[in-house]
Amino acid sequence: MKNVLGREVPDFVPGYGKVTPFKGAFKNFPEEGKRKAAPLIKYAIPRYGNKVVNNLEEVFLKIGIKDGMTLSFHHHFRNGDKILTQVIDVAAKLGLKNLTVAASGIMLSHHGLVPHLKSGVVTHIDTNGLMGAVAEYIAKGKMENPIVIRSHGGRARAIEAGDLHIYVAFMGASCADIYGNMNGCEGNSIFGSIGYGILDSQYADYVVAVTDMVQEIPLSFISIPQTRVDYVVKLDTIGDSKGIATGTLSLTKDPIQLDIARNALKIVDALGFIKDGFSFQTGGGGPSIAFTKFLKDLVKERNIKAGFAMGGITATIVEMLEEGLLSHAYDTQSFDLYSAKSIRKNQNHIEVGCDFYASPFNNGCAVNGLDVCLIGAFEVDLDFNINCLTGMDGIARTGIGGNPDTAAGSKVSIVTANLIRSRVPTIVEKVHTLCTPGESVDVIVTDRGIAVNPLRQDLISTLTQKGIKLNTIEELKEIAENIVGVPEEIKTTDKVVAVIEYRDGTILDTIRQVKEN
Amino acid sequence: MKNVLGREVPDFVPGYGKVTPFKGAFKNFPEEGKRKAAPLIKYAIPRYGNKVVNNLEEVFLKIGIKDGMTLSFHHHFRNGDKILTQVIDVAAKLGLKNLTVAASGIMLSHHGLVPHLKSGVVTHIDTNGLMGAVAEYIAKGKMENPIVIRSHGGRARAIEAGDLHIYVAFMGASCADIYGNMNGCEGNSIFGSIGYGILDSQYADYVVAVTDMVQEIPLSFISIPQTRVDYVVKLDTIGDSKGIATGTLSLTKDPIQLDIARNALKIVDALGFIKDGFSFQTGGGGPSIAFTKFLKDLVKERNIKAGFAMGGITATIVEMLEEGLLSHAYDTQSFDLYSAKSIRKNQNHIEVGCDFYASPFNNGCAVNGLDVCLIGAFEVDLDFNINCLTGMDGIARTGIGGNPDTAAGSKVSIVTANLIRSRVPTIVEKVHTLCTPGESVDVIVTDRGIAVNPLRQDLISTLTQKGIKLNTIEELKEIAENIVGVPEEIKTTDKVVAVIEYRDGTILDTIRQVKEN
Repeated sequence: MKNVLGREVPDFVPGYGKVTPFKGAFKNFPEEGKRKAAPLIKYAIPRYGNKVVNNLEEVFLKIGIKDGMTLSFHHHFRNGDKILTQVIDVAAKLGLKNLTVAASGIMLSHHGLVPHLKSGVVTHIDTNGLMGAVAEYIAKGKMENPIVIRSHGGRARAIEAGDLHIYVAFMGASCADIYGNMNGCEGNSIFGSIGYGILDSQYADYVVAVTDMVQEIPLSFISIPQTRVDYVVKLDTIGDSKGIATGTLSLTKDPIQLDIARNALKIVDALGFIKDGFSFQTGGGGPSIAFTKFLKDLVKERNIKAGFAMGGITATIVEMLEEGLLSHAYDTQSFDLYSAKSIRKNQNHIEVGCDFYASPFNNGCAVNGLDVCLIGAFEVDLDFNINCLTGMDGIARTGIGGNPDTAAGSKVSIVTANLIRSRVPTIVEKVHTLCTPGESVDVIVTDRGIAVNPLRQDLISTLTQKGIKLNTIEELKEIAENIVGVPEEIKTTDKVVAVIEYRDGTILDTIRQVKEN
Repeated sequence: MKNVLGREVPDFVPGYGKVTPFKGAFKNFPEEGKRKAAPLIKYAIPRYGNKVVNNLEEVFLKIGIKDGMTLSFHHHFRNGDKILTQVIDVAAKLGLKNLTVAASGIMLSHHGLVPHLKSGVVTHIDTNGLMGAVAEYIAKGKMENPIVIRSHGGRARAIEAGDLHIYVAFMGASCADIYGNMNGCEGNSIFGSIGYGILDSQYADYVVAVTDMVQEIPLSFISIPQTRVDYVVKLDTIGDSKGIATGTLSLTKDPIQLDIARNALKIVDALGFIKDGFSFQTGGGGPSIAFTKFLKDLVKERNIKAGFAMGGITATIVEMLEEGLLSHAYDTQSFDLYSAKSIRKNQNHIEVGCDFYASPFNNGCAVNGLDVCLIGAFEVDLDFNINCLTGMDGIARTGIGGNPDTAAGSKVSIVTANLIRSRVPTIVEKVHTLCTPGESVDVIVTDRGIAVNPLRQDLISTLTQKGIKLNTIEELKEIAENIVGVPEEIKTTDKVVAVIEYRDGTILDTIRQVKEN
């Protein structure tokens, strides 16, 4: 069937169930009176020994992990993560099959998962995004079942609603105590906020703290509390803190990206947002980091104080906190070590879970309080739909992140992107993979022009009055095509290798198997 | 029927249900595979107006509060609380009947509830304790149904297990934002930790922030998050911060109490607990506050650092934090303004909910990590059972608090009490109201002798070896009776006015109507 965006979506996905097609950003409501998933009630006798077990194998045996179960992981170590593959290696050793990996992200360091996909140890994946060897394996149609890709807010919703039932959450922690309390900001392998793991730990039937540092005295900084944790296991290595700042997070020196950042800030300023209490999410892309830096300078220059920043937190945001230029930061993931360390010592740097951050099915998540968000895109189409997932080869290269969440919640969402990347236009007729619906995408700032979604005549009017030159998105497309031509379409087979779920649980789009030459 | 402590308990309590008699401190387990209560799934559209409503009446109408529903309250303002009666006044005005008040405490300032008990607006009460006019009204048998009294941990368990289903939680907050985030440590009417409200807000069908201060910018310090809150209502007055430090919390100058405190510390030291990492809960009674002060001096003198303190937090504990004598404090309630303020600025002063603190039905609550707790008692009997609730007139004068929770969890529980209070012995044949079972009560320190529970031969042996003079509890009873004689029994009718629930949901005892002369 086709959804309202004209995307063909399947009726049913094995291991996922019946598909509800996307109907619009705020059109799919929870059933009246529907209740959340209910976690297991546990019981503990005092001084009945501590929770530390010797190794992962013992964890599997004590819990009784069986074929077909769902194991969850957070990706706070990002490309430094060494937990997911170690756990699945043990599952394989124990002869388990048909597991679902529900990971908040599949990263480059998870290439070791591929053999387990081949052998059927893991047959389903539920994630926010993927890259590297696993992404390529899946794009080439080698898994039998489509994987499910959800936004951060959508994953929180799915867990809370019981759509994603986690049997065991393997939660990486840079520090845990013998009672099971854990955090990501003390110890030798810190990664900062454990935001993506908080909800997993709340709803999973069993929770395991996976750490390289166990202490006797209960933690003072608790991200996931002992009340939810069944076992603590100490591994020689859980991840490399240096990995958290790799990938999209290095500060750009590219003059084009700096230019885009300056233009984005000009738009935000022209719209009157730069004042006391301004709230923003900028994320970790090249222009985003530059934007935050320029924003910081502007806030300082104007002698004002921003309200809150949110999402992935970078060093510049922490500096704003430290210099009194920002009231507080809600941190779902720490994008660099400076931020990861800050969370432990700065009471205005607040670790939050993804339900608070972005779930649409509660009494109002924090993205709804955003003035402005900056979002990234590999492609934007003439309807302002965004592809922030698959690259020009049709293979996923990152995660959807909070892209659709922040776009939906914020007053103004701004895409920052080069108009042409590696000789391919960013503005296209139809995006290859639809991750964020155009109705919640307001402005696109490129190095060769700015376009505003015609749905936002209010913005067009204000910006025009302020003398900012705007193009239509069609014009931007033409500019790009005049330089590099119309890109060739990515060739795919009919096989659906992934479904893209919108934050409300409906299906936005599918990814089809890339046709190999 | 009789429970294992020989107490007569009813089979059934109206508005509560079937009674399970107490079987022993760790004998009642949750049913295998039983799941927690499941809160409602909500939905919010961004920028769809804020949550602030004009008054309490509007809240009642918007939510549609009906006869027979359960409304919950926390008692963090203690004797300064002005929220509970204001809310029930509105219920009365709207003609509602048969409501259940589920309050973490009924305080002196709640005397305005009495007319609503008389008129049938409120017909059931579920609380941790009670005092003043409401306590007297109930003790005299004037309510048709028995009230239910639970410990802090027991209340958390009951909420999580779905035994106490809250329809609307009216949560006092010294500060809230228009999105519904709230705390108790910013604004003009601060009370510190909102620990007793955290679970209510998580499980109630509807949550209302009741405050005297609303701000536009989202809070940076969030005790109850916007994701759970339906409405925010601003009242002229919500409570008097000065009220939080009244009652049992003033620092004693009584030489007898100081002596008891010194002796209690001597016991703790003799048992070898005073070392790095020592964890304790001392509470707010006269000897407790003095004990904490002496403990602080000793920790300083020995140049060590305690691990964690927990429960009601007092200024002395905060000073220990500030002077580096204590790693951290888990705070369920702030017992004075100094503590209430500290929570906002000291990252090692941690607000926690009652599930984390003391619920027996999770993966291990924090009381299980305590070395030592000091608990209070109006009476202790020859089986070491404690009455910490009813006074010599048979009327409740305070709350059970975390008495049975900490006694069950800590390695050693120590009762501190005058052997004779107002010419009445503290040690009795059988306590009038059984609040904490003797099996988890280890030591009683009085001004005229120290007794150790014979179940703890290990303690008796260590203390005797260290040259500490011990009495049997029978000896202590005799000493007291030789001075003031055997107290007259409190005369009661057969009518059950309250049931005392143990933390695991079984019934320890009942309170019967006092016979008036």
